[in-house]
Amino acid sequence: MNSERLTYDVAVVGAGPGGYICAIRASQLGFKVCCIDNWLKDGKPALGGTCTNVGCIPSKCLLKSTELFEEILHAQEHGISVEGVRFSIEAMQERKDRIVSESNQGIQFLFRKNKVDFYLGTASFASHNETGSVLNVIDQETIQIHAKHVVLATGSRPREFPDTPFDEDRILSNTGALALRETPKTLGIIGSGVIGLEIGSVWARLGAEVRVLEVQNRLLPVADEAISKEFGPLLAKQGIAIELGVKVQTIENYGDRVLVSYVNRNEEIEELWVERLLISIGRIPNTESLGAESVGLSLNASGFIEVDENCRTNLEGVWAIGDVVRGPMLAHKAEEEGFAVAERIRGIVSAIHLERIPNVIYTTPEVAWVGKTEKELRESGRKIRVGFFPMKANGRARAIGSTSGFVKVISDAQSDEILGIHILGTQASEIIGQAVQALAFKASSEDLGMLCMAHPTLSEALKEASLAVNHKALNI
Amino acid sequence: MNSERLTYDVAVVGAGPGGYICAIRASQLGFKVCCIDNWLKDGKPALGGTCTNVGCIPSKCLLKSTELFEEILHAQEHGISVEGVRFSIEAMQERKDRIVSESNQGIQFLFRKNKVDFYLGTASFASHNETGSVLNVIDQETIQIHAKHVVLATGSRPREFPDTPFDEDRILSNTGALALRETPKTLGIIGSGVIGLEIGSVWARLGAEVRVLEVQNRLLPVADEAISKEFGPLLAKQGIAIELGVKVQTIENYGDRVLVSYVNRNEEIEELWVERLLISIGRIPNTESLGAESVGLSLNASGFIEVDENCRTNLEGVWAIGDVVRGPMLAHKAEEEGFAVAERIRGIVSAIHLERIPNVIYTTPEVAWVGKTEKELRESGRKIRVGFFPMKANGRARAIGSTSGFVKVISDAQSDEILGIHILGTQASEIIGQAVQALAFKASSEDLGMLCMAHPTLSEALKEASLAVNHKALNI
Repeated sequence: MNSERLTYDVAVVGAGPGGYICAIRASQLGFKVCCIDNWLKDGKPALGGTCTNVGCIPSKCLLKSTELFEEILHAQEHGISVEGVRFSIEAMQERKDRIVSESNQGIQFLFRKNKVDFYLGTASFASHNETGSVLNVIDQETIQIHAKHVVLATGSRPREFPDTPFDEDRILSNTGALALRETPKTLGIIGSGVIGLEIGSVWARLGAEVRVLEVQNRLLPVADEAISKEFGPLLAKQGIAIELGVKVQTIENYGDRVLVSYVNRNEEIEELWVERLLISIGRIPNTESLGAESVGLSLNASGFIEVDENCRTNLEGVWAIGDVVRGPMLAHKAEEEGFAVAERIRGIVSAIHLERIPNVIYTTPEVAWVGKTEKELRESGRKIRVGFFPMKANGRARAIGSTSGFVKVISDAQSDEILGIHILGTQASEIIGQAVQALAFKASSEDLGMLCMAHPTLSEALKEASLAVNHKALNI
Repeated sequence: MNSERLTYDVAVVGAGPGGYICAIRASQLGFKVCCIDNWLKDGKPALGGTCTNVGCIPSKCLLKSTELFEEILHAQEHGISVEGVRFSIEAMQERKDRIVSESNQGIQFLFRKNKVDFYLGTASFASHNETGSVLNVIDQETIQIHAKHVVLATGSRPREFPDTPFDEDRILSNTGALALRETPKTLGIIGSGVIGLEIGSVWARLGAEVRVLEVQNRLLPVADEAISKEFGPLLAKQGIAIELGVKVQTIENYGDRVLVSYVNRNEEIEELWVERLLISIGRIPNTESLGAESVGLSLNASGFIEVDENCRTNLEGVWAIGDVVRGPMLAHKAEEEGFAVAERIRGIVSAIHLERIPNVIYTTPEVAWVGKTEKELRESGRKIRVGFFPMKANGRARAIGSTSGFVKVISDAQSDEILGIHILGTQASEIIGQAVQALAFKASSEDLGMLCMAHPTLSEALKEASLAVNHKALNI
């Protein structure tokens, strides 16, 4: 290749949701763009990063398949009888793998369509000055890419428990836990966040006895307390037992089983033997191979790339987005940043609103929220009003037999501006879109209460919770 | 009872969704309120009107049960094998009846809680003057209720085909078609609106051969043409054959089967024999028993009560809402009017926005829209822009295996204000809530395209369709 061809306006490092969206948008805006990624599957590029390969997409595939299995086991409630219900994990995994592969290929298609050049390899800085950067891209051989702008979107990887490497057989990260080919009799999970609860749900539905150990004193410590409180018993009924206030001391991998020693909330030492153990205690940014030091790129003590509110690093023309920078490690947060950075490079003022990034957990029922929790607001001294509506008073929830959960709307006591919306309930993932819009438009709870929602829909619960803020709920 | 007790600020006639919401809201606002309804089930009051008893709620129950049955038949795609799948219509109907009864009782509970007095009986005007109305309420005996304000919410009933009375055995309205205790081998349906398609879906899933005859030249003539076009083949695959441009001539009920004679679109006479026939060709308002003439209440030639934009009739202090007045015959439209009328009586300026009432059809996939269709807008000469995004390019749709359909966003060519949003796709019923909000807030497609939707959700398809209006869609 001649050096002419390897000169770009924008080089994006990482083809996860942040990177690939940034590359496409930059190309739409008229830049010459390339994207570099090193994820391999069966020796071939597998674009899409953690989200597509071992995160959002495969988990949702397995969650759907196992949710159907669970529904079939309870089909008698609908007058449907079945015999000999069996599942093939092999077939579920094949379906998942097929959908993941289609998604990988979909991104390659989008790159071709949008004229984004793709390079397989690991990128590091060879040099940087005010006119641009040179990246070394190492695969079988090394090539050099010159780019005026570099967008770093190298993502993150699961954090290991000390002295306990992931072998993805007994000690599992999300990668191994989504790839199991048999149901573990017992599955231990360290950490009750989104990964732990989603993957725990998959295997619990297929028969695993699931034990979750959580260091904090409540389930889903990042969620609103009302969710933590109501969700725990619902999970317990599904075979997911959660122990709170636990300090894990040691983990011993015996090859065929795992021993977890921990101190329980009563300061007693306990031992837990499990067939397999998922460790979901956070993720760390992928910044080691970037050669940050050689060009003076600022990282913080935890290895995250330091950026301002517009995802600018300390180096002119170098940007960073997604899991390698501050903020929630979520695919759609990375996408927002990728989109905004492409526009910023073009000179368009495109803001990133970290305060209204929605959170979703795809369990039964689903959990979703956006904005502040009641506790955060009360602790900050903000005067607030709270509206609450239980799903069991919603007509559609009753008709479809999914009556667990609630919608909670929090607004400012004076202005009534909505500050947070928290949903536990089926399809919370989709209803939360209305909450995102409400926050973006600085809507009041009165505004939402006046919208005409179709009947019967679950969305009516959001309307009612909004009316409840002003004591006007109708169906409770 | 003494006459003191039977004097009210507000008397609501009809306890359907419009009436019961109006009564509750009026009571919340401090009025002394009663509600009168004559719906009986097993000799007891069955509050909730058509929606609760023979409409929204029972149809959604049967749709959910049969959707699960359909999913079980295709569970192999998820690696789940089942044998001897059987359904008991009796059990499905019992589940439905139980949920309907709970809803009936729920409204009675809400009336007690909100201090709304309930009277069983059929109400008609005894007299009216500028200080109020007197209603005769006839059940076993006649009582009289004096009320300063009367809200008429008597709803509608299915329109009969000429000379073809509903016997609810062979000639079915929604009432009979939702109560069948066996799957008809062949089910004919006159009219491809929401009732025809939802009930047709229920029985097609349970094995009926369904034939729909539609007088217009396209399916779902009220929907956007893009929906009509894509939806027809999807229904055909589900065993619902739709014949368009058909003029039904005669219907003969032979007691054990029904003969429909019609002229097809090629002007040929055809005969269709079916085991049962659902007639869903519209609904007519229930105004005959009101004694409208005796007090000079204005009805139009079709029997609808004439009202202004605030649901005021020609009589001082008499209001009318829901199916008995102009506008779409939808539960949530009636609710909006009921809520607004209660507030108007209190002197609160509460507007009704008929132009942003959402429409939903709970088929597979679901259909939902709000605002104008492309055809309406083009015919009005409005310059528009259109964005389109297919569900098959949406990550969650792929993960859950529901990739049929699309989202279509229409905005004004100059201002970019959103004028209509049309969705064919799973969970369209819930996603349309975002569209309602967008119309209410006069959002532009650019606004919606900038919202951060959780990944992976179906709501991302709405974001992408919004971006597509300005040629910025990312994942297509």
